[in-house]
Amino acid sequence: MLERRNPISIGEAVKQIMKHQISGVTEYVSISESYGRYLSEDLIATSNVPHFDRAPYDGFAVRSIDTLEASQSNPVEFEVIDHIGAGMVSSKLVGENQAVRIMTGAMMPNGTDAVVMFEVAKDYEKNGIPYMSIKRQINKGTNVSFIGEDAKQGEVLVEKGTLINPGIQAMLATFGYKEVPVAKKPLIGLFATGTELLEVDEELVPGKIRNSNSYMIAAQIERAGGTVHYYGKLPDEFDTCFKAVKDALSEVDILITTGGVSVGDFDYLPGIYKKLGAEVLFNKVAMRPGSVTTVAIYDGKILFGLSGNPSACYVGFELFTRPIIRTQLFSNQPHLRKEKALLEVDFPKANPFTRFVRSATFIDEGRLKSTPSGLDKSNIIMSLAGANSLMILPGGTRGFMAGNEVEVLLLEDQVGSVWPW
Amino acid sequence: MLERRNPISIGEAVKQIMKHQISGVTEYVSISESYGRYLSEDLIATSNVPHFDRAPYDGFAVRSIDTLEASQSNPVEFEVIDHIGAGMVSSKLVGENQAVRIMTGAMMPNGTDAVVMFEVAKDYEKNGIPYMSIKRQINKGTNVSFIGEDAKQGEVLVEKGTLINPGIQAMLATFGYKEVPVAKKPLIGLFATGTELLEVDEELVPGKIRNSNSYMIAAQIERAGGTVHYYGKLPDEFDTCFKAVKDALSEVDILITTGGVSVGDFDYLPGIYKKLGAEVLFNKVAMRPGSVTTVAIYDGKILFGLSGNPSACYVGFELFTRPIIRTQLFSNQPHLRKEKALLEVDFPKANPFTRFVRSATFIDEGRLKSTPSGLDKSNIIMSLAGANSLMILPGGTRGFMAGNEVEVLLLEDQVGSVWPW
Repeated sequence: MLERRNPISIGEAVKQIMKHQISGVTEYVSISESYGRYLSEDLIATSNVPHFDRAPYDGFAVRSIDTLEASQSNPVEFEVIDHIGAGMVSSKLVGENQAVRIMTGAMMPNGTDAVVMFEVAKDYEKNGIPYMSIKRQINKGTNVSFIGEDAKQGEVLVEKGTLINPGIQAMLATFGYKEVPVAKKPLIGLFATGTELLEVDEELVPGKIRNSNSYMIAAQIERAGGTVHYYGKLPDEFDTCFKAVKDALSEVDILITTGGVSVGDFDYLPGIYKKLGAEVLFNKVAMRPGSVTTVAIYDGKILFGLSGNPSACYVGFELFTRPIIRTQLFSNQPHLRKEKALLEVDFPKANPFTRFVRSATFIDEGRLKSTPSGLDKSNIIMSLAGANSLMILPGGTRGFMAGNEVEVLLLEDQVGSVWPW
Repeated sequence: MLERRNPISIGEAVKQIMKHQISGVTEYVSISESYGRYLSEDLIATSNVPHFDRAPYDGFAVRSIDTLEASQSNPVEFEVIDHIGAGMVSSKLVGENQAVRIMTGAMMPNGTDAVVMFEVAKDYEKNGIPYMSIKRQINKGTNVSFIGEDAKQGEVLVEKGTLINPGIQAMLATFGYKEVPVAKKPLIGLFATGTELLEVDEELVPGKIRNSNSYMIAAQIERAGGTVHYYGKLPDEFDTCFKAVKDALSEVDILITTGGVSVGDFDYLPGIYKKLGAEVLFNKVAMRPGSVTTVAIYDGKILFGLSGNPSACYVGFELFTRPIIRTQLFSNQPHLRKEKALLEVDFPKANPFTRFVRSATFIDEGRLKSTPSGLDKSNIIMSLAGANSLMILPGGTRGFMAGNEVEVLLLEDQVGSVWPW
């Protein structure tokens, strides 16, 4: 009575899925709305920065040549012929032993090539005319920010696929990107299945539980950078179910279902894939949890049939769905970032299959350490809350001891990894 | 002509500000909108999980006592009297040598205390009646998830102030939180000052630059968890300026200005604080960049006068404004998370004052390493883009060499630190 499924390796599963990756689409959003989005084009310097020679400090702009003879015993005097703040441009041409009082950010006046900071100058008036004097030689270029010193026009400053952070916002503004080209968020459809599922506001009754997977996956989709369209619970009746899935496929880029993919007696999804004529890439993966994860292709769209078990559902999404979403966000490192960490506690359980353990990874004295964030039984959602990583315990291993080095996948990270891990 | 200001230490500055911290306010949002918000109350288990004994795998629910005699040479036969999926409840009372075919997640039928997995059972029919047999003894409780095994009713599962992640979303749904108590986002007003500032869509002209600080700070506010109200550029005229600041203070929780706080000749902010009668907590901090950062209190509101220099502005916000925002989000670790890292390159510059160097911190073979992400001159915004951290180089140090241990503040982190660092 049991259907036999042939498990494929995780690497092979990812490879199969990535063959069907969808390319990203650009949309333009106002710079005020671009924080947290992903650049869909390289950010290019549209001008030099600075685009004029400027004073990085308050002081007096001078011709350095006039300071050659200045020393402790021989102060050199300058007539202060103008006074400018940031944003102002002096109309004067500065001549011999003349200076302009200048504030941070202002453009260097014509003829000047150095700034004397207030601290090293003495200023005073003679007959109502301002003067200043200095007692040291100032080299050409001292305290001047030169054109293009920070960025050269045409330079690629940030690569496409990068998450826009506050620093990138500053750059976008500097270069006049009032509208910013960002990756359109892929639209992910989501169905839950399971007669046991109650809505979040329903009272508990024996045998039934509230639908938690849909809210969890919706947040995972958002964290990955997508937008979710939640279609609700699939009806228990096959034909209605089939129509709902087929209709949804015409509206979204990617379709996720949770539950119903096992070989259990009430699992409809395999039948739906069959009736659709979808190409099933695989329906069993050599991993725990998430072994029943099924991925199918229909009409160029990817259907992710994730397990109804919360842990398996979570892991299946992060390993298989996330990289597809990230690819649509122009990332060239779409997979979860993998790092090495020291195991904090013993994990004596043997691992016939590669196991992903929800874990809390932290930094201790500059070293990455990781500890399972709860029991790792099926159906246990509590451990998901504290988890910021998945610990990889490879198949065929006999358990791990505290202090062993393990690999972890970082869930809250924006850097990512390339494949293969 | 120079105003003399007495710098205070960073620790003292933070302490002064934190005396004026504002408590958070709760608002309720739909669970679908709660991802990425901060819990304003502890998340409590409103029921046991599971709230009934259930099967974590597909199989046959049996009375373990009936398996006592089972062995390779003595298979024990069970009549299969019912068949239930998740969400169904069997109406049968299971008697001697009877079993119920049960799917993952379904409630254990009355009388049963163990589940025999399909793999170890042989099922068949006799005269149209389903049977199964097993050849091994099954202990009481085998393959059963018991009431409260995962969470006990009344237990505090997640503390207030925690960022809601996908796992917490699952928990909120499980416990029926259709509306979630979250911290209201503090409203932060923002003014830019500076005659040199152009709007993002204006053409560059000599001496002027586009206003990048406002977009940068707006994103920093969002990253910290607040909402920004951008009031635009302060006019150059003092009285209009004064009125604008005063009016804004009646509308927001916190007010940030960028620029105009120096002792430069065109800096109006000190005069505005004076005319307001605001209590200036400090106007100089022993740090680089950001030494001119000024913080004042008026009518219970905090005014952050950040430097107009992009780097100083960035650092001032993260050190001084962020913890105030995080406190309003119920965090008890509101300061930037501090960790130790190995310096990747030489940084030979001496540090008369504590210096914050924008840096890229990364993990290499399980170790945190950090490298300055660009030149560290004033006015250089380019280095901000790649920065995910601020390296702290303490005042009074003579420079650092590659391989030295340094402290870094992590900018993209949600965990935070307590004070003092």
